[in-house]
Amino acid sequence: MSSFSNSSATRWPRFNILLITCCYVLCSTMVVVGTSAAKVRHFKWHVEYMFWSPDCEERVVMGINGQFPGPTIRARAGDTIHIDLTNKLGTEGVVIHWHGIRQLETPWADGTASISQCAINPGETFTYRFKVDKAGTYFYHGHYGMQRSAGLYGSLIVDVAQGQTEPFHYDSEFNLLLSDWWHQTTHEQEVGLSSKPFRWIGEPQTVLVNGRGQYNCSLAPNFANSSSNQCTFKGTEQCAPQILRVQPNKTYRLRLASTTALASLNLAIGNHKLTVVEADGNYVKPFTVDDLDIYSGESYSVLLHTDQNPNQNYWISLGVRARLPKTQPALTILNYKTTSASKLPTIPPPTTPAWNDYNHSKSFTKQIFSLMGSPTPPTTFDRRIFLLNTQNKLDGFIKWSINNVSLTLPPTPYLGSIKFGLKSGFNQVSPPEEFPSTYDVLAPPTNPNTTVGSGVYKLEFNTTVDIILQNANALANNTSEIHPWHLHGHDFWVLGYGEGKFSKADEAKLNLKNPPLRNTAVIFPFGWTALRFVADNPGAWAFHCHIEPHLHMGMGVVLAISIDRVKEIPSEALSCGLTGKMFLKKNSLP
Amino acid sequence: MSSFSNSSATRWPRFNILLITCCYVLCSTMVVVGTSAAKVRHFKWHVEYMFWSPDCEERVVMGINGQFPGPTIRARAGDTIHIDLTNKLGTEGVVIHWHGIRQLETPWADGTASISQCAINPGETFTYRFKVDKAGTYFYHGHYGMQRSAGLYGSLIVDVAQGQTEPFHYDSEFNLLLSDWWHQTTHEQEVGLSSKPFRWIGEPQTVLVNGRGQYNCSLAPNFANSSSNQCTFKGTEQCAPQILRVQPNKTYRLRLASTTALASLNLAIGNHKLTVVEADGNYVKPFTVDDLDIYSGESYSVLLHTDQNPNQNYWISLGVRARLPKTQPALTILNYKTTSASKLPTIPPPTTPAWNDYNHSKSFTKQIFSLMGSPTPPTTFDRRIFLLNTQNKLDGFIKWSINNVSLTLPPTPYLGSIKFGLKSGFNQVSPPEEFPSTYDVLAPPTNPNTTVGSGVYKLEFNTTVDIILQNANALANNTSEIHPWHLHGHDFWVLGYGEGKFSKADEAKLNLKNPPLRNTAVIFPFGWTALRFVADNPGAWAFHCHIEPHLHMGMGVVLAISIDRVKEIPSEALSCGLTGKMFLKKNSLP
Repeated sequence: MSSFSNSSATRWPRFNILLITCCYVLCSTMVVVGTSAAKVRHFKWHVEYMFWSPDCEERVVMGINGQFPGPTIRARAGDTIHIDLTNKLGTEGVVIHWHGIRQLETPWADGTASISQCAINPGETFTYRFKVDKAGTYFYHGHYGMQRSAGLYGSLIVDVAQGQTEPFHYDSEFNLLLSDWWHQTTHEQEVGLSSKPFRWIGEPQTVLVNGRGQYNCSLAPNFANSSSNQCTFKGTEQCAPQILRVQPNKTYRLRLASTTALASLNLAIGNHKLTVVEADGNYVKPFTVDDLDIYSGESYSVLLHTDQNPNQNYWISLGVRARLPKTQPALTILNYKTTSASKLPTIPPPTTPAWNDYNHSKSFTKQIFSLMGSPTPPTTFDRRIFLLNTQNKLDGFIKWSINNVSLTLPPTPYLGSIKFGLKSGFNQVSPPEEFPSTYDVLAPPTNPNTTVGSGVYKLEFNTTVDIILQNANALANNTSEIHPWHLHGHDFWVLGYGEGKFSKADEAKLNLKNPPLRNTAVIFPFGWTALRFVADNPGAWAFHCHIEPHLHMGMGVVLAISIDRVKEIPSEALSCGLTGKMFLKKNSLP
Repeated sequence: MSSFSNSSATRWPRFNILLITCCYVLCSTMVVVGTSAAKVRHFKWHVEYMFWSPDCEERVVMGINGQFPGPTIRARAGDTIHIDLTNKLGTEGVVIHWHGIRQLETPWADGTASISQCAINPGETFTYRFKVDKAGTYFYHGHYGMQRSAGLYGSLIVDVAQGQTEPFHYDSEFNLLLSDWWHQTTHEQEVGLSSKPFRWIGEPQTVLVNGRGQYNCSLAPNFANSSSNQCTFKGTEQCAPQILRVQPNKTYRLRLASTTALASLNLAIGNHKLTVVEADGNYVKPFTVDDLDIYSGESYSVLLHTDQNPNQNYWISLGVRARLPKTQPALTILNYKTTSASKLPTIPPPTTPAWNDYNHSKSFTKQIFSLMGSPTPPTTFDRRIFLLNTQNKLDGFIKWSINNVSLTLPPTPYLGSIKFGLKSGFNQVSPPEEFPSTYDVLAPPTNPNTTVGSGVYKLEFNTTVDIILQNANALANNTSEIHPWHLHGHDFWVLGYGEGKFSKADEAKLNLKNPPLRNTAVIFPFGWTALRFVADNPGAWAFHCHIEPHLHMGMGVVLAISIDRVKEIPSEALSCGLTGKMFLKKNSLP
């Protein structure tokens, strides 16, 4: 399936680029066990800090088995993934979240510190074991502090089960994991976000594609309005771009996933159109676009037909949107094998739509519908929760809050404190389900002060829950940001997007016919997004803005679903905090 | 007792310096409980990262209760210290070691991660409770990863018990906690030390006195051979030096303690002599010097008589020794209150003796004898352990080793794995007690490769143990470094120092009459140091080079003394690793 099959270095006029062989699966110490169609895939991973040059400037990254990004997991639907994860960090705990995997019957393996498990201590090994039940394009990443920003991420690709086929044809595929990168350490970023006065992390220095980007040079300085010099690569650099080598008149599946800490990205390929066929591990009604928006936490598969002049190469460009961009677009090359990979494209790189052209963004997003035959939502809901997103102050600190509660995670995982009725584990009062009807979402908050809290929304098993995400003006005038909200443990149907405050009149506009199933959905500035899901997966689940610093500043909630039904939590997952103490207490030490 | 009693800002001709009021005890949320003479002193501390400018350049430091260095603990001999320590770091564990406190009957409170306890998880609180049984000048510091280097330290001063007196007179005192400071984060330093190729941390940017130093300016540029500019202070800067304000014809006790990560320091005060009266919490036979060497892990009290011209001020200088110094001496002012604090000294700052004038160093160290009436060592030993210090390679990594074993700490604290017989907790084979008699300590190792290990030296209760620390040539030719070795849980008698390899002939030269009791002793280049102690304190105790990166590279051993006698280990101290699992296993989760 991999198209990274040509490992010969190709010389360019002014720089050489290694055409990297995709050795992920081989490199990741993977052992497959099983005789039936579904397999148990075993991995032994260690997480460590290491020096790396993601954008040609050396910094410390968080790597797995000496690789950055971490090894790609490749499995088939129905397989079980078994990962022995050893923490080789000096003094930090670690967890890994398997983004988009629902963790049916294994909520303890969701990899969210303080929610589904205790962080793994340095020197210790924790075993994640879970089923990948549904084919799709997924990824994994750290979910403790800002370890995702530090580089703890990789791809997780689930193919259809043996004998099954995808509902679209393609000849080969490429896997592009997108991220953004800062030169300031995430440790310092964290301290800044929690400081008084507040220190924002700023825009990323570089956008990375499969962990590779260029900071102080450009692949296409002749086209860009930059003062950067032409990059010169020997080909072995950690920051040398991966070239997509294609044959003419074929169909390629590009698997895209964004694990950015902050950036909303837009992908376009010179002269080529893209047909969207998958979103977040769910098939969508195919639609064709010139460019595609992808927000942090989202994944897509797009089909690319190599139907252009095969004697040319083409730029692939990934630009920043939704924030005034200070970061150069990431570039790489679509190389028709019929021509030399060293031939620079003559057509300029595609121009990223204006950062604040939200109509463009909405137009793209609103084209996404589920593929015919996909599950449809229940036509009624049992409970509807409104979640107002506001930026606030707390004793001079800057926070994000939901219904005026800024989430602060407790040391004891919710899964454990709820399972064992440890009421001091978190605030027992549930946070509000709505906000005052008089709240003006178009103006800065009249009372900017927030509260902090660790309460949860308790959802009844198998009930249908609507969540109306309501955006609002931030602290500054005329400012409202994009927030991509990601739900753990479930997919939701995206019933619709709207402007201003959600109202009864909007009810009729909701799409109950073919809304897309997703795990991440964006709220546009000053707008709302309506979601519906069936709370059929017992566990403690995070639901949060996938922008790393926003979550760090409290922009999330926790959903608790029938935790009494959760069986077989490995005790190692709960060896900290109050659950840890509970276990200890039962044992008297001499 | 404090002389930091004048808080009025004094204007200098070219810069102003705040005369800082010593508010340590008041600031540290201290509550004293108890009616008898001995008290329980309660503290509530939280450890966090914060932005700070120790040397006028802003970096992230590890602070306690918003202070850097952490609050000074002040108690009386016989008091109990009760500290509720809350970890407010994002993703890192933390512990605090109470350096010099023997932890009689409380070995679990020694604050050594992997040895005496599990690191405290983020968000959690651990209670240290221990007796300070002996008056003296102590300090505390992090003992996990390189958190000491990151700034986690403070002073711990124990006064004589109520009604008792010191064996020397003084009118007032100053407390100077010495450290060194890097601009590179300790996280990066750690990664570099563990990388292939190896990356050394280099020399410190600045020497700090009570957490204050000057990097890009000098208090005395007219005297220094530096291109630095004159410092200009408003007085409120975090890096403004503390001035020692004295009255003429008085006696001041300077309490000195060095928690440097690397630097060996030499202190001198223009025109003034210093009389050494205490070392590491033990009284010594007073002797008078022009300047004093202090190695990492050591503490001293010196008496200063203000018998010089009271119309002048004098420089206090702290220069780096024992390594080719690339760091400016730390400077501050001894100000006779009879003259303006703003009057710059006219006499140049004292010149630090040449860094490699080891005769000067040995001359100072060999003047240290115990005060008459101090405990004397047993005249015979039950066991003698030779510890050869070598620098080595391991698969291309650079390590320090003891008898060819580089210490690697396990995730389960030794105190727990030994107490509960968990044999997989660490290497069950004890490391060697001696090294080949043919080993040439004057040449680089012929076989530079080392092993790693986690074995312990098991010592019988109440036996007299000799340790001969044997220095050797490092990997490079004609190179041998100074290493200050620090023992936890005990003081030892320093029986003597010698050149080359310890031999039978040296036996007769050992001082059994009045050797000083200490907890830290240096080995000089190419030399040996002979120590004796009685293993009368059950527990798991670190014994290691106090240079932070050297310990990180494996330069230490662990001593296990009759752990079967240890009672009442709080289970929270052992909630990680195999002990944690053991407790969990006894509880079946549903």
